[in-house]
Amino acid sequence: MTETTAARHGRVVIEEWASDVLRDNPLGDPAVRRVPIYLPPSYDHDAARRYPVLVLLTGFMGRGRMLLNDNAWSPSIDERLDALMGRGACGEMVVVMPDCFTRLGGSQYLNSSATGRYEDHLVHELVPGVDARYRTLPGRDHHGVAGKSSGGYGALVLGMRHPDVFGAIASHSGDVCFDYCYRGDIPKFCDAIQKARGVEPWLRAFEARIQKKHEDFVVLNILAMAAAYSPNPATAPFGIDLPCDLETSEFRDDVWQRWLEHDPLAMAAGHADALRSLRLLYVDAGTRDEWHLHLGARQLVRRLGALGVSCEHQEYDDGHMNVGYRYDVSLPKLARALGAPPLST
Amino acid sequence: MTETTAARHGRVVIEEWASDVLRDNPLGDPAVRRVPIYLPPSYDHDAARRYPVLVLLTGFMGRGRMLLNDNAWSPSIDERLDALMGRGACGEMVVVMPDCFTRLGGSQYLNSSATGRYEDHLVHELVPGVDARYRTLPGRDHHGVAGKSSGGYGALVLGMRHPDVFGAIASHSGDVCFDYCYRGDIPKFCDAIQKARGVEPWLRAFEARIQKKHEDFVVLNILAMAAAYSPNPATAPFGIDLPCDLETSEFRDDVWQRWLEHDPLAMAAGHADALRSLRLLYVDAGTRDEWHLHLGARQLVRRLGALGVSCEHQEYDDGHMNVGYRYDVSLPKLARALGAPPLST
Amino acid sequence: MTETTAARHGRVVIEEWASDVLRDNPLGDPAVRRVPIYLPPSYDHDAARRYPVLVLLTGFMGRGRMLLNDNAWSPSIDERLDALMGRGACGEMVVVMPDCFTRLGGSQYLNSSATGRYEDHLVHELVPGVDARYRTLPGRDHHGVAGKSSGGYGALVLGMRHPDVFGAIASHSGDVCFDYCYRGDIPKFCDAIQKARGVEPWLRAFEARIQKKHEDFVVLNILAMAAAYSPNPATAPFGIDLPCDLETSEFRDDVWQRWLEHDPLAMAAGHADALRSLRLLYVDAGTRDEWHLHLGARQLVRRLGALGVSCEHQEYDDGHMNVGYRYDVSLPKLARALGAPPLST
Amino acid sequence: MTETTAARHGRVVIEEWASDVLRDNPLGDPAVRRVPIYLPPSYDHDAARRYPVLVLLTGFMGRGRMLLNDNAWSPSIDERLDALMGRGACGEMVVVMPDCFTRLGGSQYLNSSATGRYEDHLVHELVPGVDARYRTLPGRDHHGVAGKSSGGYGALVLGMRHPDVFGAIASHSGDVCFDYCYRGDIPKFCDAIQKARGVEPWLRAFEARIQKKHEDFVVLNILAMAAAYSPNPATAPFGIDLPCDLETSEFRDDVWQRWLEHDPLAMAAGHADALRSLRLLYVDAGTRDEWHLHLGARQLVRRLGALGVSCEHQEYDDGHMNVGYRYDVSLPKLARALGAPPLST
Repeated sequence: MTETTAARHGRVVIEEWASDVLRDNPLGDPAVRRVPIYLPPSYDHDAARRYPVLVLLTGFMGRGRMLLNDNAWSPSIDERLDALMGRGACGEMVVVMPDCFTRLGGSQYLNSSATGRYEDHLVHELVPGVDARYRTLPGRDHHGVAGKSSGGYGALVLGMRHPDVFGAIASHSGDVCFDYCYRGDIPKFCDAIQKARGVEPWLRAFEARIQKKHEDFVVLNILAMAAAYSPNPATAPFGIDLPCDLETSEFRDDVWQRWLEHDPLAMAAGHADALRSLRLLYVDAGTRDEWHLHLGARQLVRRLGALGVSCEHQEYDDGHMNVGYRYDVSLPKLARALGAPPLST
Repeated sequence: MTETTAARHGRVVIEEWASDVLRDNPLGDPAVRRVPIYLPPSYDHDAARRYPVLVLLTGFMGRGRMLLNDNAWSPSIDERLDALMGRGACGEMVVVMPDCFTRLGGSQYLNSSATGRYEDHLVHELVPGVDARYRTLPGRDHHGVAGKSSGGYGALVLGMRHPDVFGAIASHSGDVCFDYCYRGDIPKFCDAIQKARGVEPWLRAFEARIQKKHEDFVVLNILAMAAAYSPNPATAPFGIDLPCDLETSEFRDDVWQRWLEHDPLAMAAGHADALRSLRLLYVDAGTRDEWHLHLGARQLVRRLGALGVSCEHQEYDDGHMNVGYRYDVSLPKLARALGAPPLST
Repeated sequence: MTETTAARHGRVVIEEWASDVLRDNPLGDPAVRRVPIYLPPSYDHDAARRYPVLVLLTGFMGRGRMLLNDNAWSPSIDERLDALMGRGACGEMVVVMPDCFTRLGGSQYLNSSATGRYEDHLVHELVPGVDARYRTLPGRDHHGVAGKSSGGYGALVLGMRHPDVFGAIASHSGDVCFDYCYRGDIPKFCDAIQKARGVEPWLRAFEARIQKKHEDFVVLNILAMAAAYSPNPATAPFGIDLPCDLETSEFRDDVWQRWLEHDPLAMAAGHADALRSLRLLYVDAGTRDEWHLHLGARQLVRRLGALGVSCEHQEYDDGHMNVGYRYDVSLPKLARALGAPPLST
Repeated sequence: MTETTAARHGRVVIEEWASDVLRDNPLGDPAVRRVPIYLPPSYDHDAARRYPVLVLLTGFMGRGRMLLNDNAWSPSIDERLDALMGRGACGEMVVVMPDCFTRLGGSQYLNSSATGRYEDHLVHELVPGVDARYRTLPGRDHHGVAGKSSGGYGALVLGMRHPDVFGAIASHSGDVCFDYCYRGDIPKFCDAIQKARGVEPWLRAFEARIQKKHEDFVVLNILAMAAAYSPNPATAPFGIDLPCDLETSEFRDDVWQRWLEHDPLAMAAGHADALRSLRLLYVDAGTRDEWHLHLGARQLVRRLGALGVSCEHQEYDDGHMNVGYRYDVSLPKLARALGAPPLST
């Protein structure tokens, strides 16, 4: 029957979320964000049910709505969730897809004087707000955070720093080992900014360019990372300390040290208790990751082991891009860890 | 005021369109299609208003919903329409975004025994259906068809063949001059299919491949074009005559002649009256089009001139991909030609 | 001992060959050419010995001296010959490496009113000249012609047309099936020449460009093929009929027909007796040839079979470029067919 | 007249140089090297003349003979020298083209326990040997060293360390600022060696691969640099300390420090007197150098300035590869600095 079939599909609500925390953010990015929220198939039919919450973080240059984009041969996240739940592989969850995009392409889901308080927005506004508006299961044991690339980074960091909020983490190709994933791009960044004669003209030219190029994104990525990891309100015009000197081209070790403090490799030791308390810590990466994040993942897993942190680690034969299919691996694990109920029929 | 602002945004309805015409189509593609329909800003507020209809056709491997995909630096079609109408550049229209996707990546919006009756679906089901369900202005003078790449092809062909239905056409980088846009890929196609030992194993391997490659799409494109232009119910397994002999590798001139009959270059003369009757015929292409469609456009424009057909022809400095910004040029022209009313305030 | 070792190395003489035939050639290319001639290891030690002659033709944009270029991991042709003869795999031959390069990148080893009489130069000057100056074995049974790409084409065509001169042919990745190897590049050619506003300004800009690009060579290749296959003294400025109309962009079928007459696929039937008389006809190509020459080879082999011509056909897993290692396969076969004596010790 | 013209061409002798220093080198590379020596046009005609000596060093994966390679649109070094001298732009010099190639692709022209004593070979064997065998002008004021890429590095380092031998340096795109030119490739190296399960199997697979890939050379480059900069006789199997841990993937700071000691940026201060004594120090790089060597050059020039060292610094719009045309700039300057006599007529 049609109704039965319909019941097997979740529903996506796109909330227009007016954030107090993001109001008047330094980059002038909108404080009202469109946040998709996936409600599982039984949500509209079983008013007594409550569900765990998964916060799903997109990669650099992404925002939640992109997880819904239609693509000929790769299901959108709602189609994926419907399919997984429909065949009993994954329990029912509410899935929240934040928008932490900025003019610089992203925020790394951190608070920064250069971009805004995105970590606060997520942890203090979005998660409690979802709990207030939707029938969710309360408590950190029923809240998870996952993501890919910069979203995988966000999942690791938010999970480490907010054990009271999140009880499970999945990081796909997350930014780990900054020495390998960012540092090699710094001369390219230095070069592009020097040629443009500064960050501001570069950014304006980038924004004006109809067809962005791959190398543009390399430059933007380093700029956004600097905004996230080495903000400095005293530095004009963007309040960002750059990792290279634009006059001499020299690498700036002092700035780099500030970046490294945000590397999950460095952070793990200081958050070992939180990490040990997790119900699930899942980490994976493709063995041909163009940013070498599989090497970062290996180093992280080794370090976690030394700290007595349990971690499920997978590798697979692929690169960094278009690996949404890895959610088919992590979502069932997350659902189980968060106590998601099976699809009710 | 918030309400005023809200009124300036259109609304997208995604219709679940159950097609009679597509039922039991030969490729087993769904007969129920999700068709986005953009209703202009005043639609919900001015119940007396009627609007022209624009049918917007996606390129190969696309379907209507993809026009709504979120992207960091390129607006989706609804955002584009909102912005154009909002600043008074474009009158209000209902915009329909069909789904004529197939297992082979597309249908060229034609009827074919190998794929299904997509032309009939569009002309006899979708357009009358939209007219029936929405407050549209009646008659061909208020109905237009536009698209990009295969969608630009579809716009040209549907416009030529159905002057009773469509009164305005815009073709962006449409498939024209098959000798230039397809023929060079035929040896690549022949090669790939030979290596796979047939169309069926190739298609299965393609569908199983997680990461599709650029060359996969080259092969799929030729296969889909063969399905559209040289179907043959007698040919196993897909009812398609291929443009090369898989045993000898030889080019098949007889099959190619059947393709050429579908080339807008060849079709124009037979539809000169229809073309002359158009209120708008707009054609453009980037001068670095990787499929040489700017050369095709030039030849078409020249041929149209010889037939006494008026045509607005533009070229711009770009390639074939990611040229959605060209709709900012064509949509205002289409709106004007179709008698679209200005945004009511 | 050093002397023994030395005896096992051949010696390369670079002849400054003053050609009568090439004097005052239409492109103003030099009539004096530097032609390397490989003399086998025993040549300087065994004054009674005579040797077969192999004419070795380079690909497009090549000339004989390039076969001697030093490369870190790929032996030059003289090193290859030394090694093959040294280990007894290949009999001793004199190997001649003509220079038929032109301002347009090559001549296809044909006579053309647009480039010069390169076929005559080879057959009537170079081969008899080598026979006159060096201790060679007389007669077509001891003369072979081989080459790669355009050189493989040259080998096929010279072999077909001069059975009195050559008794053995080896064609590596030779230009065969013009429909597949050239035709797809014609719109690219048309585009580039249109953008430059003519052949002359394009050629001047190409010559002035310090870093040539891949697409430059695509354009130059079509230009050179037109000079070889469709010369026309009446056409200014280069005496070449182009395969597309520069004003309308249209493909010119009449010119194309003249090209096709030079396709080995078309020529074979008219030279079946010559082909049947060969002591060796060897054809190979890599199965990933970017110009689809493996498909051309397959079609040629099939056609030769229908004509009763014996042909040894090999395929291997590689593309078109850097396949000098295939000479390790053909040189021993050629030496055997031409009656080359084993290395004397 | 022909004789006059002939007199305007130099002559290249290829010496078979049996090195004592390189005998029994650790990689098993040949101790006998073929070293081209360019003798200027008047050399064979004016027996009283003496000439300065320029040692010309090739880049990574190169050796002297490659400077003679024939190429359709780019002159070989002897053609370049003939042309420069012929038109009076450059005085007459003897130009020596060493072969310091190794199984790992190169030696950086340094002494290393892992590769051999290439610096000694150059300075103590080759230069005195050329002076002994040819009519050269004696003394450091008449001896220069130049090169490109790794050869530019060699020129800088040999020039700094042997002011008694060399009085002029030209470095084109020389390896400077190891943080920018090598470090970013270390994770790629680590990855490739890990996948191959060690340096030895990787190297064997590399050598067996018919078609080397770009990424192979990236890996080989890091391996060769480790052999040059961080040799360690105690490390099996190659006596090389690698810059990353193959088990944990971690970057090895201690090894990296040893590399940095070889960076011209770090070496300059310790050799300031030598550098100040030079008759010419010329440095250039393309502003799109893929290894960021233009940034390295800028930093070096700045540091030299602080040390009171005069340096001529040029930049040009190009990348790293195929920039042999820059010798047209440096050779005349070197000839002048070294007191080269004008071409005698």
